[in-house]
Amino acid sequence: MDSRTIGILGGGQLGRMMVEAAHRLNLSTILLDTPPDSPAKQINALNTHIQGSFADAASIHELATNCDIITAEIEHVDTHILEQLEKPEYQATKLGGKKVEIQPDWKTIRTIQDKYLQHKVLIDGGVPTAEVLPIQEASEQALKDVGSVFGYPYMLKSRTMAYDGRGNFAVTSEKDIPEALSQLGTRPLYAEKWAHFKMELAVMVVRGKDAVMGYPVAETVHEKSILRVCYIPARGVSKEIQERARKLAEQAVSAFPGKGVFGVEMFLMDDETLLINELAPRPHNSGHYTIDACPTSQFEIHLRAILDLPIPPTATSLSTPTTSSIMVNILGSPDPNTPWAHLDLARSALSIPGATVHLYGKGPGRPGRKMGHITIVGASMAEVQANAAPLIAAAFDTGEIPVPKRPARPTPIVSIIMGSDSDLPVLIPACQTLQKFQIPFECTVVSAHRTPARMVSFAHSAVSRGIRVIIAGAGGAAHLPGMVASETSLPVIGVPVRGSQLAGVDSILSIVQMPRGIPVATVGINNGTNAALLAVRILASGGDAGLTERYVRFVKGMEEEVLAKAERLEKFDEEVGKEGWEVYLESK
Amino acid sequence: MDSRTIGILGGGQLGRMMVEAAHRLNLSTILLDTPPDSPAKQINALNTHIQGSFADAASIHELATNCDIITAEIEHVDTHILEQLEKPEYQATKLGGKKVEIQPDWKTIRTIQDKYLQHKVLIDGGVPTAEVLPIQEASEQALKDVGSVFGYPYMLKSRTMAYDGRGNFAVTSEKDIPEALSQLGTRPLYAEKWAHFKMELAVMVVRGKDAVMGYPVAETVHEKSILRVCYIPARGVSKEIQERARKLAEQAVSAFPGKGVFGVEMFLMDDETLLINELAPRPHNSGHYTIDACPTSQFEIHLRAILDLPIPPTATSLSTPTTSSIMVNILGSPDPNTPWAHLDLARSALSIPGATVHLYGKGPGRPGRKMGHITIVGASMAEVQANAAPLIAAAFDTGEIPVPKRPARPTPIVSIIMGSDSDLPVLIPACQTLQKFQIPFECTVVSAHRTPARMVSFAHSAVSRGIRVIIAGAGGAAHLPGMVASETSLPVIGVPVRGSQLAGVDSILSIVQMPRGIPVATVGINNGTNAALLAVRILASGGDAGLTERYVRFVKGMEEEVLAKAERLEKFDEEVGKEGWEVYLESK
Repeated sequence: MDSRTIGILGGGQLGRMMVEAAHRLNLSTILLDTPPDSPAKQINALNTHIQGSFADAASIHELATNCDIITAEIEHVDTHILEQLEKPEYQATKLGGKKVEIQPDWKTIRTIQDKYLQHKVLIDGGVPTAEVLPIQEASEQALKDVGSVFGYPYMLKSRTMAYDGRGNFAVTSEKDIPEALSQLGTRPLYAEKWAHFKMELAVMVVRGKDAVMGYPVAETVHEKSILRVCYIPARGVSKEIQERARKLAEQAVSAFPGKGVFGVEMFLMDDETLLINELAPRPHNSGHYTIDACPTSQFEIHLRAILDLPIPPTATSLSTPTTSSIMVNILGSPDPNTPWAHLDLARSALSIPGATVHLYGKGPGRPGRKMGHITIVGASMAEVQANAAPLIAAAFDTGEIPVPKRPARPTPIVSIIMGSDSDLPVLIPACQTLQKFQIPFECTVVSAHRTPARMVSFAHSAVSRGIRVIIAGAGGAAHLPGMVASETSLPVIGVPVRGSQLAGVDSILSIVQMPRGIPVATVGINNGTNAALLAVRILASGGDAGLTERYVRFVKGMEEEVLAKAERLEKFDEEVGKEGWEVYLESK
Repeated sequence: MDSRTIGILGGGQLGRMMVEAAHRLNLSTILLDTPPDSPAKQINALNTHIQGSFADAASIHELATNCDIITAEIEHVDTHILEQLEKPEYQATKLGGKKVEIQPDWKTIRTIQDKYLQHKVLIDGGVPTAEVLPIQEASEQALKDVGSVFGYPYMLKSRTMAYDGRGNFAVTSEKDIPEALSQLGTRPLYAEKWAHFKMELAVMVVRGKDAVMGYPVAETVHEKSILRVCYIPARGVSKEIQERARKLAEQAVSAFPGKGVFGVEMFLMDDETLLINELAPRPHNSGHYTIDACPTSQFEIHLRAILDLPIPPTATSLSTPTTSSIMVNILGSPDPNTPWAHLDLARSALSIPGATVHLYGKGPGRPGRKMGHITIVGASMAEVQANAAPLIAAAFDTGEIPVPKRPARPTPIVSIIMGSDSDLPVLIPACQTLQKFQIPFECTVVSAHRTPARMVSFAHSAVSRGIRVIIAGAGGAAHLPGMVASETSLPVIGVPVRGSQLAGVDSILSIVQMPRGIPVATVGINNGTNAALLAVRILASGGDAGLTERYVRFVKGMEEEVLAKAERLEKFDEEVGKEGWEVYLESK
């Protein structure tokens, strides 16, 4: 595939999964890390690996003498030797003329290592991110000055070597300043304006030689600043916002040179704007789901990108349009006395439908250490959530799942429209029925005769907005359902609304008697309930097992209701000596 | 997860993929194979592997001293030492009291090694398989005797060490007998009655401690007796036959003791019966697709089974109900002068949507040697086939894709029913429309009033038979659509058929005015076309991008047709001095 040997800085779990992907493509990899049995080295008997630190220039030089291209699974590497390694004179004198390439660009790694500089590059590139202030010298006055500009709370952060919440301090008022200084005072610092977000999102982005492409948007849930669970696609976030998030992530990555995969973390703010939080110039925990849920994983795509191998445009989509996924981290037990307790979570996942366990070969666990992860995949988020529920609860130290402040409304998949608000009483039962089946829908007025332009734009945009079924109610010369059907390929269900004349026969015939070529699925006069139930049947027929089950339960409920009434009618009341129908009548 | 070390007999590609699965579960594996850099050893630096043959007793003994449980990636192993290893006295005296378990059972491996015995066990177990005859001594007379019992052609096969077609000879007439003897005469032989099959199928089956479970049914296509391409699920094979095939495979595996995964190859005969061809007591080439298309791969499930780890019931299904998959083998080039040509296929796969490349680390290729495989996954077989087309063509030495004799009809997803055959003229346009959209459907008579029991059983079985939409036509007191809707959760489209009385108003109102709770999607009187088009919209709304595209093209076609007519009507014919409508009228 490519005969070059890839040197990887770091041999942890990200390196391990990178090596796994490399094996499938028969790519030769060689690892630099201190432990001789690091997670990545365990699964690679192809080469003799280098024992040493990825922050040590001599070790990186040694790696360079054994490989053709260097990449990193961690950003805390010595970029000065990387800078040297790429220079022709260094290669000529120190590498005996051997060429070596660095991907991603060492300049990108160096910038990203310093979170303050990272923010500056994003801001200079016009990418929305939190406002930042440099702190030249860590002093009470300097931190008070920040407070007077940003207000409280604000985030005090170490510019370097900060990850999983280490190196961050939330300054909630002036009173916190001494504690902040005692914790972080010796480190290079900067301040970030507080982001009032309702949700955290993350997007993996790959930049190859030709294109920048984002994966689906993950909703990330942290506890104590450590990622615990990802939901893909992000729950309750409209397609429009997801599309914006992906574009924004692509834009952020474009601000940095070099090839490879990048993890982009961002905030969805209370006002539904997006702010970039930070970037990682490498595969990222929030992209682990791509191994099981996407055609090409973040690890393989990283290798393809740095080696200029092809990346088809669908590589970063979900495997099928119906795929939903949840990733749960397996962390070392919070109790240091139970170093193997994390395996309980892994074991329990073996019994869960759609779950795949990935353990990293790290031996006994330490509190908060990433020991592995579990990906659960299925045909709908409802199904995956139900299957993952016990794992998710166990993934949080507190056992309680944090509830993020969500956007007001999930993306609708059914649209209920009516020719006039006077039709609303007929459509209300449709709304209530969809609500009962937990189907997200929208409801509005679209008039064929009074707002023809709106009707056309409504119909044309429906598919791209994620709508799968349209319910249209109209009365009299009831043209709305048929006209909408003429402008969309979606199934349109027509509800004839009974007007003051002709008992609804005008409505029903206007809707049902469509010309050959443009069907409308017509239900009975004023029967909004049936329109919604038909929509449920249509949605379930697309393969949503959970919905089918809810529908079958609903039918069972109807049957039981009628049978109960039958029983009342049949039962002779001996006390009063009356037939059931007589008692029934009296109780009405 | 499990602290036992697994010894694997054989270190080829099956062992490699087993080790890959073991790594993810942090299971320790140790390999026995002659090459020090065999495919499986390359990816396992956890243990010191054994250099030696899996057919050599001393090497297997050495493996046993280093592991707790022995399994195999190949069946051509020395079963005599395996038999010894399990004996308590051997363990006490030769293994220093160390226990070692063999899975699958050595008796199973021994029986399966001898294809004649394998057939006898299947036949004794009541499993349908080809008739066999033993051949005590290979002589012209013996082979003639077989011919006089089985007729010609029949298959002459080596009882042992036969795979990828080696050790098989098709005896087409008495004239072939000398050549058959010269090729196979020195081997232990038996004869198989010729199987007149239209298609070859394969099912992976896992037997754990509690259950026997089959994966989806793969259609296997061979060239020169070597597997080239698998289609999953098997194309054009009804759900009913697939279910039978899976049950049969499970039954076949149940005839042999021991835990683990088994590959079951079978024939779909001209008369739609199924015959077992042969079993492999290990992961199998026809199950490679499970890595990318199922929640749990055949390799991981094998490990789970032999270690008594949990296997959820959905582990062997496809990842989502819409998943389709094609597996293409990457073989060494038929031209020995181009030992790296197989990489061209792998490289071209990198550009294909939904494709994952698995190379086995075997170095230069030899003709016909399995160097890797490609799995293509997508949301429909049509999509996957379109994407895989160039790979499939290249996978066959001849470049020509063999066309198997297919079952007459693919599994229908739409059912068209009518109350009486007199309704057929109204439903014919529905049939023609579905045909145009390449949607498999069935068409029959079901009468609510005259065959009520048939109607109920039809409606109850529809979901499990794979039907996603029902079109029901009826006239007069048209109860069929509504009654069917009462007995199924599928969307039912009602077509009112105009009778001799009341101009179809009776039919339409009988169909559309359903009570709250049971919807019928009603279309216009006699409008079978629109019923089918509504079915297309419903199916496309489930996420079938290809179908949506065909539908949009169809709508475009309608528009162009009407616009062309408009043009004719508008055009003044200067030669004859007539308006378009006049010319139009005359030409009618």
